Amino acid sequence: MLFNRVAIIGLGLIGSSLARAITKQGLAKETIGFDTSADVMSRALTINVVDRCADSLAEAISDADFIIVSAPVKASAAIVADIASSARPEAIVIDVGSVKGHFVDAARASDKCLVVPCHPISGTEQSGPEAGFATLFENRWCIITPLERGDEPYKAAVAKTADFWRAIGSDVEIMDAAHHDLALAVTSHLPHLIAFTLVGAADDLEAVTEAEVVKYSAGGFRDFTRIAASDPVMWRDVFVTNKDAVLEVLGRFTEELALLQRAIRWGDEETLEKAFARGRTLRRAIVDAGQETDAPNFGRDQENE
Amino acid sequence: MLFNRVAIIGLGLIGSSLARAITKQGLAKETIGFDTSADVMSRALTINVVDRCADSLAEAISDADFIIVSAPVKASAAIVADIASSARPEAIVIDVGSVKGHFVDAARASDKCLVVPCHPISGTEQSGPEAGFATLFENRWCIITPLERGDEPYKAAVAKTADFWRAIGSDVEIMDAAHHDLALAVTSHLPHLIAFTLVGAADDLEAVTEAEVVKYSAGGFRDFTRIAASDPVMWRDVFVTNKDAVLEVLGRFTEELALLQRAIRWGDEETLEKAFARGRTLRRAIVDAGQETDAPNFGRDQENE
Repeated sequence: MLFNRVAIIGLGLIGSSLARAITKQGLAKETIGFDTSADVMSRALTINVVDRCADSLAEAISDADFIIVSAPVKASAAIVADIASSARPEAIVIDVGSVKGHFVDAARASDKCLVVPCHPISGTEQSGPEAGFATLFENRWCIITPLERGDEPYKAAVAKTADFWRAIGSDVEIMDAAHHDLALAVTSHLPHLIAFTLVGAADDLEAVTEAEVVKYSAGGFRDFTRIAASDPVMWRDVFVTNKDAVLEVLGRFTEELALLQRAIRWGDEETLEKAFARGRTLRRAIVDAGQETDAPNFGRDQENE
Repeated sequence: MLFNRVAIIGLGLIGSSLARAITKQGLAKETIGFDTSADVMSRALTINVVDRCADSLAEAISDADFIIVSAPVKASAAIVADIASSARPEAIVIDVGSVKGHFVDAARASDKCLVVPCHPISGTEQSGPEAGFATLFENRWCIITPLERGDEPYKAAVAKTADFWRAIGSDVEIMDAAHHDLALAVTSHLPHLIAFTLVGAADDLEAVTEAEVVKYSAGGFRDFTRIAASDPVMWRDVFVTNKDAVLEVLGRFTEELALLQRAIRWGDEETLEKAFARGRTLRRAIVDAGQETDAPNFGRDQENE
């Protein structure tokens, strides 16, 4: 058994999935939950996501040896400051936020306990304790961005945190927070921004009704609505806290878009065909890496076949 | 039985799916295929997509009463001109292209037979006769953009074409070509352009490797690679032939993107959260309309649960 008591602060999609995975793999003697929403806590208890819930953050963490902070990025940074002053000094505290620079800055200021910043690259577009499931992290990557601390207890905490992610089915990568924030700006933050933008643009047209957008969405639009249906507060925090990296990769996107726009305007078929041919190669690599299904249409229409 | 002999010109994803659907529903006495690629014809015969293949376009259409042209947009416009001069005058000729204005212009010039422009809003990112399946059109919309002809034989041909699509499971909508091209620019062409752009932008970054893009693609990027893996030639034709509508909706997209970019730069959390909240509403409408699965992550990870 990896841990005695695991405290999970925030019982949404990720927190409740981690609680389920911990129970499924038998990684803790006890799981104790806390959420700022009493309603979320009561729903989580109803479906037995955690063994019990605490009445306060302080109670939840007081005897925990592993503390998971699973809240939106800005809230997590604030919570870790609170935790560091009252948790047991040997407790390991992790977060699961999508932006690491912002959290690392907050964690550096509160190094009374062992804070290990983490980001599991997994999730769904749904929210809340009911949306979680134990296998969410299987075959996905978890990136750890350790603080700049060379002491043995901290190194051991990072190693134990990596063991934890592997125990629930993830592969682990270690990198610095700045590189994480740039890499994820490309593979996650920019795609979400673009999806939100496309939904907004479609919603605003006068000449094409929303009913038409809905009816003909199988032409491609519906794909974008999945990630555009993600939690607005979580994503607001991501863009505000990873501003520089997002604006940088957005600049690259805008350049590429201008190139294709010009090719369309001038009927430059060669440029278009060449640019479009890159998609198949990259998708093949993603499928081969086990990060995507090979089924047509994501397998979403399989019930039809 | 709706037809005696159906000729299918072009045996790729759409043509081969239509052939299968016709056979499955018993809509024709005979299906005869033709493709400019001998290899495609031989593969289609191997898997029994059509009853037989013709040696030439002229042979394929000579005795057909329903002719399906399922080729990229520009090729379809050229083929329909060829067909009109040699098909039986009472034959119905349909296409399945994603841009209708361009095809209507070509069809108008060749009104010796009954040309009914069609666009089924269905497909997958895969290509070739092996990728087709009979249920591809079920619960999807097919848009018909009739020529401006008021004669009874033509009206009957449009009605019979609508019956055909309904017989293979589609809902049918009639509209003019210009409105079709604008509506589809929003729901299909712009999403594809954006997906191709995102793949190109990710491919070009120096600081983030392609291996990292692949590994962390479950953060959202992988969703875009599905439609970016679509047939490059087909999509080159779409953008060249629907230039005006695509550039118009691209302008709206760029405005919306500039708005969100500015909100990120200035930390305008209220604008971001408000814009992001629209995604859930629109996705709910698409799911409720039966155009999308309700399963998290498109159900692509269901084997894990």
